Amino acid sequence: MLLNGKNWQTIWLDENTNFVNVIDQTLLPHKLSTKTLKNADDAAAAIKNMIVRGAPLIGVTGAYGLMLALKEEPSLKNLENKFDLILNTRPTAVNLKWALERVFNKVKSIEERLRAETALSEAMRIQAEDINMCSKIGDHGLEIIKKISQKHTNKEKKVINILTHCNAGWLAAVDWGTALSPIYKAHRSGINLHIWVDETRPRNQGSSLTAFELKNENIPHTVIVDNAGGYLMQNKLVDLVIVGSDRTTKNGDVCNKIGTYLKALAAKENNIPFYAALPSSTLDMKMTEGVKNIPIETRDVEEVTHISGISESGEIQKIRIVPHNCNSYNPAFDVTPNKLVTGLITELGICKASISGIKTLFN
Amino acid sequence: MLLNGKNWQTIWLDENTNFVNVIDQTLLPHKLSTKTLKNADDAAAAIKNMIVRGAPLIGVTGAYGLMLALKEEPSLKNLENKFDLILNTRPTAVNLKWALERVFNKVKSIEERLRAETALSEAMRIQAEDINMCSKIGDHGLEIIKKISQKHTNKEKKVINILTHCNAGWLAAVDWGTALSPIYKAHRSGINLHIWVDETRPRNQGSSLTAFELKNENIPHTVIVDNAGGYLMQNKLVDLVIVGSDRTTKNGDVCNKIGTYLKALAAKENNIPFYAALPSSTLDMKMTEGVKNIPIETRDVEEVTHISGISESGEIQKIRIVPHNCNSYNPAFDVTPNKLVTGLITELGICKASISGIKTLFN
Repeated sequence: MLLNGKNWQTIWLDENTNFVNVIDQTLLPHKLSTKTLKNADDAAAAIKNMIVRGAPLIGVTGAYGLMLALKEEPSLKNLENKFDLILNTRPTAVNLKWALERVFNKVKSIEERLRAETALSEAMRIQAEDINMCSKIGDHGLEIIKKISQKHTNKEKKVINILTHCNAGWLAAVDWGTALSPIYKAHRSGINLHIWVDETRPRNQGSSLTAFELKNENIPHTVIVDNAGGYLMQNKLVDLVIVGSDRTTKNGDVCNKIGTYLKALAAKENNIPFYAALPSSTLDMKMTEGVKNIPIETRDVEEVTHISGISESGEIQKIRIVPHNCNSYNPAFDVTPNKLVTGLITELGICKASISGIKTLFN
Repeated sequence: MLLNGKNWQTIWLDENTNFVNVIDQTLLPHKLSTKTLKNADDAAAAIKNMIVRGAPLIGVTGAYGLMLALKEEPSLKNLENKFDLILNTRPTAVNLKWALERVFNKVKSIEERLRAETALSEAMRIQAEDINMCSKIGDHGLEIIKKISQKHTNKEKKVINILTHCNAGWLAAVDWGTALSPIYKAHRSGINLHIWVDETRPRNQGSSLTAFELKNENIPHTVIVDNAGGYLMQNKLVDLVIVGSDRTTKNGDVCNKIGTYLKALAAKENNIPFYAALPSSTLDMKMTEGVKNIPIETRDVEEVTHISGISESGEIQKIRIVPHNCNSYNPAFDVTPNKLVTGLITELGICKASISGIKTLFN
């Protein structure tokens, strides 16, 4: 998608060195900077420190990480070690494991000298598939927005108001994104949109990444604090909610960034359609009862107690926003039970958030 | 209540000058500093800029503001001008108007030379009544906490987890506070408590004021982002929610800081009691259907786009946390419909959030 008018992806191979480049998302929106991952430790650190983030992108980064590991040392032992290292960076997203396993299974039984090259082609395949999946998610989601838009044809130039939480845009994937993909497709097809962007504390992915993406694509948007969404929905200022998902159980419970559940409750209460957009690799077909069973990552409390931004003089600074020595707690995700979810938007189509609904995707 | 081990109130008269002193709450929790209000313009600015905030405290400050106006110029015309000036600082809280009208009605028909002194005694009466009301709110609310505590007598030393949003502590009143008053009374009566403190974006009254109050009173507490409350409730980590209110309609719809509604939805969904604590002066007995009828203040977007905190070197700094020129919107309150409210805790007792429930308070 567009950054300063040019097309970018979040991750790309340097074809001379076979190192992997990524956008350093910790510096956005204030600074556009890239980082080179030279080995598996770099890849693991990039995921852990959220230089790359978003379920699809960390999957692709993990896959490239195994390639980088095998390039240095192609033994099975090293492969297994780096597999564990990378997997343990983020416990919630299911498709990090999925991507790592794809590479692992592809290379484990072949000759050592072929492993790095095979891992590379598998990582590139995952990357290409991700772009294609996200594009298809956009095509399917576009139909939902079109239907809402058609309801309003009698009114003059109705603007469709869509609320989104966190960042499930192209910065969370390779290109297009998940929750934002339908928005990009709708905008490009000429539908008038306005996006309510949840700030998404504590890491502010909404105000720093989603707002940055939408600005670069020239889509009208407004940043709001996470507290404001209920008020907007109650006052009929939201037509549709679309969020991403880090893991969705086979009965349609949606695990996503902390605070998603509160927005889903408000959407249900106010009869506003609430969709989760996700590649089918995010479906955990072994799990039901998401609230009970999905492990929720607890992150460093400094994400809550301190915040980064840009000073008037243009420096990126970190400040403390709580009393000295304040106790804090930082669960990073929550689970929205399927009864609050209108539907799932996947690359395979749209389905109800239920066991039978999800089954229809695979028929 | 306690600050650094000494008893404080949020507002007090300087008996030599008859000027009014307040704690400058914009600098908390990083700096404890006071400000002297010398005239009505100072009082209006203090309310407008949230040097003082919280429905009860702005009522008391408004009353003192009229006294300061009359001390300078006791004419009816000046009284009316300053009444309007102060009233227009904050449109949502109903008891600012209530307090101003009390002083206005007391002085409007008496001799000019007696007006300032009469306004002073009325303001002091409002202040004393506020302390007494908040204390009684605490006594009544304590009974709710005691009941929850008694349910757990069989378990060893059960801790009662209470979630609160924004700051409805003594810093929002003169002393004791509203939502925090039951918590202070329960703590002093030996019940084991732990308080989940919602950060309360955009002004962070939770993490800066409520956390600061609780720390000074030695009550165990944890600051969380506003997004986390739903997750905590879903996982049975909250026994009770208590919030304040800036205006409650006669049918029990509770207007309070933006985001309260989302917590009420989550409490209802998870069968957790949700109470609003408020002096009866906060009841707007002329209004029903709060969502439709209560005017919601929209505040400066800089509250969303910028944030203040303390740097590592100890300076208070303001940084921008959104992209350059980012569009934002900042509604300051929302309305929680009565069906989500378990009850109202007032100085007159506890009642259901309904027309008939509220009537019982006045029998």
